[in-house]
Amino acid sequence: MNLTLSPDTPHSLPRRRLLTGSASALAAAGLAGWSTGALAQTAAAASPKPLPPYAEWKNAKALIVHSNNTMETRRAAYGTSVITPSDQLYVRNNLPPPDASIVANADAWVVAIDGVKNPRSFTVGELKTMGLETTTMVLQCSGNGRGWFPSKPSGTQWQVGAAGCVVWSGVSMRAVVDSLGGVVDGMPYMTGTGGEKLPEGLDPKTVIVERSVAAEAMKDALLAWELNGEPIPLAHGGPLRLVVPGYTGVNSIKYVKQVAFTAKESDAKIMASSYRLTPLGEKGGPDKPSVQDMPVKSWINSPLPEDGTLKAGVAQISGVAFGGLHAVKGVEVSIDGGKSWKPARFIGPDMGKYAWRQFVLQADLSAGTHTLASRATDVAGNVQPEHRVENVRGYNNTSWLDHSIKVTVA
Amino acid sequence: MNLTLSPDTPHSLPRRRLLTGSASALAAAGLAGWSTGALAQTAAAASPKPLPPYAEWKNAKALIVHSNNTMETRRAAYGTSVITPSDQLYVRNNLPPPDASIVANADAWVVAIDGVKNPRSFTVGELKTMGLETTTMVLQCSGNGRGWFPSKPSGTQWQVGAAGCVVWSGVSMRAVVDSLGGVVDGMPYMTGTGGEKLPEGLDPKTVIVERSVAAEAMKDALLAWELNGEPIPLAHGGPLRLVVPGYTGVNSIKYVKQVAFTAKESDAKIMASSYRLTPLGEKGGPDKPSVQDMPVKSWINSPLPEDGTLKAGVAQISGVAFGGLHAVKGVEVSIDGGKSWKPARFIGPDMGKYAWRQFVLQADLSAGTHTLASRATDVAGNVQPEHRVENVRGYNNTSWLDHSIKVTVA
Repeated sequence: MNLTLSPDTPHSLPRRRLLTGSASALAAAGLAGWSTGALAQTAAAASPKPLPPYAEWKNAKALIVHSNNTMETRRAAYGTSVITPSDQLYVRNNLPPPDASIVANADAWVVAIDGVKNPRSFTVGELKTMGLETTTMVLQCSGNGRGWFPSKPSGTQWQVGAAGCVVWSGVSMRAVVDSLGGVVDGMPYMTGTGGEKLPEGLDPKTVIVERSVAAEAMKDALLAWELNGEPIPLAHGGPLRLVVPGYTGVNSIKYVKQVAFTAKESDAKIMASSYRLTPLGEKGGPDKPSVQDMPVKSWINSPLPEDGTLKAGVAQISGVAFGGLHAVKGVEVSIDGGKSWKPARFIGPDMGKYAWRQFVLQADLSAGTHTLASRATDVAGNVQPEHRVENVRGYNNTSWLDHSIKVTVA
Repeated sequence: MNLTLSPDTPHSLPRRRLLTGSASALAAAGLAGWSTGALAQTAAAASPKPLPPYAEWKNAKALIVHSNNTMETRRAAYGTSVITPSDQLYVRNNLPPPDASIVANADAWVVAIDGVKNPRSFTVGELKTMGLETTTMVLQCSGNGRGWFPSKPSGTQWQVGAAGCVVWSGVSMRAVVDSLGGVVDGMPYMTGTGGEKLPEGLDPKTVIVERSVAAEAMKDALLAWELNGEPIPLAHGGPLRLVVPGYTGVNSIKYVKQVAFTAKESDAKIMASSYRLTPLGEKGGPDKPSVQDMPVKSWINSPLPEDGTLKAGVAQISGVAFGGLHAVKGVEVSIDGGKSWKPARFIGPDMGKYAWRQFVLQADLSAGTHTLASRATDVAGNVQPEHRVENVRGYNNTSWLDHSIKVTVA
């Protein structure tokens, strides 16, 4: 039944039954108003949904509200200033956020550190005295680009907007671990646990947000209390978030209440069988590859047909490119649907290997229809592919073809 | 009488007479509600002022509202994420902003380029096809730090908060000039003119916002339409601002309607006699040095006494440092009021020579009172001085002593 709580969990039930089950399970768990992605989309088709209360400070014009837990940045709203403003940043919560009082009293939030020589808990106030680091990174939902999968995977039908490039400040996870004597031997995983209130009447393992990444990810991870220059809002995991650069968003645990170095990956459903790259027709499970670090990707944000009539002549084709754990090295742009490519130019500041770069190509667009595409390469030599890798839940779509845009020039 | 319109213009009238004159001149010019800095401060002392309508989207908690045209970021509101969020960024307008319709129809705004081989005008829509660059820079009011001048210069009593580090996107001024055949010979100045509606009944030269900088500043200047990832808001000069990195804010012309390469500096009052570094007892004029590029500066933002009781023990002392036209090279921090100094560490991304850097020093603070200070050095070897340079209007305060903070540790 837990399936019904999250649009990003896999399901094997027939779609109709799942949806029916959803509504009743949500109601039973006291989560009326929290709908699955699929339900939300049905509602969205009927009338635009308002921002939920915990995100009502967001710029409604810049967002598509899919549901109370899923809001997407409009492609046309992306600027060219590297950083995604917090009020335009996507939201994707696996569970309803805790009560807002936790951000009002941020310094009192407690996180336990385990699997180290001297395990203990810290308040955020204590963490703030222990160190300070700032990291820029792409935060991207594992399902970003799902909307283009022809298999119509369940879950939110994101196109490009479940991603942003943001700045976090906090204490280095490594500094915290070092202060506790280091990691206990034989613990290859860093497992973060979210502090959401779990719905009653369900097996906690089936709903808790708990994810494991390679322990070495701690070297660039933060226990962060600040997002884009302000205390982390509740919608983005404040007062404290475990931030794991280079990995998809689900691995950066909101309202983090525990970080443990563990011998095994978490057996919580969100780790054991959800967020797995499962071939079509098969079922998610620990034997399938987990969605973790992000593959190289790029897309064009401007010009878009929504901009109005595009005049023939010179245009500045711009977008974003990033490489997960590897810095992005270059981007090529095509104005003929991939028949020919030209190298684009990076503009603006390089904010580090985990940030995206803005790119631009000046092109002369003649009257007619053009398919604009971008294709990024990372420093490890990985090239963004033409086609997505099909999988049951529609994760990790990096297809340059799916992300291409048609423009009409008059 | 124009003196009365701007808190940053010098005056030689006795204070009382000026203030009396202010109110009537403002009323005569139909600008009731626009008060001088001095008047505004009087009002602020009585009760906190609300944000004016054109800035009501700002984060009121992060700002001190001095007047309808002057709002300061609270020192405690600065985060450690390099970029100052737009909703926390200071506002300082020399005149009321134009009608908001100009940002609603941004692409239609027109700017004239003159003093080039083939002068012409462009709409913002046209500029967007001509090029795209992104620049990060410190935007700082010339009078930031005025509040510490013992001579009590007229104007807003800013402390640290008339400054932010922001990202602009637009077209390179040089690219625009190149497209028009280059600058005409014998034009050493780049003169930008603001598009504010001038109050009637006053000599335009005494109120118009028009500033000249060295023509070579165009190499890094932008005609910008985006601030921090969003179209430039009216409060910050949208739809189009001439952005001149490394120079004080007044040189980045809001609502820019003309950029001309000129043989002489503008004879507008804001250039000819205002914003001059005038020794005490003398009068501003073209013979005095103009306030243009920013000298090296830094200050500490955390920990602040407002944070509550500071516990004895390890603390992370952090702040910002920048160098105007020269990148900042290093920062030292003192916890004993300047008797001894230790090198601080830069954290976070380096966003280019015009951006500020965040710095941090870990220090062990024993019980008692400590005076925390920071002292920056730029790549040209300039060192932030202990004392401010006295001047009539209180510009360019970079004194590390003035910017030091006392903390009580228990």
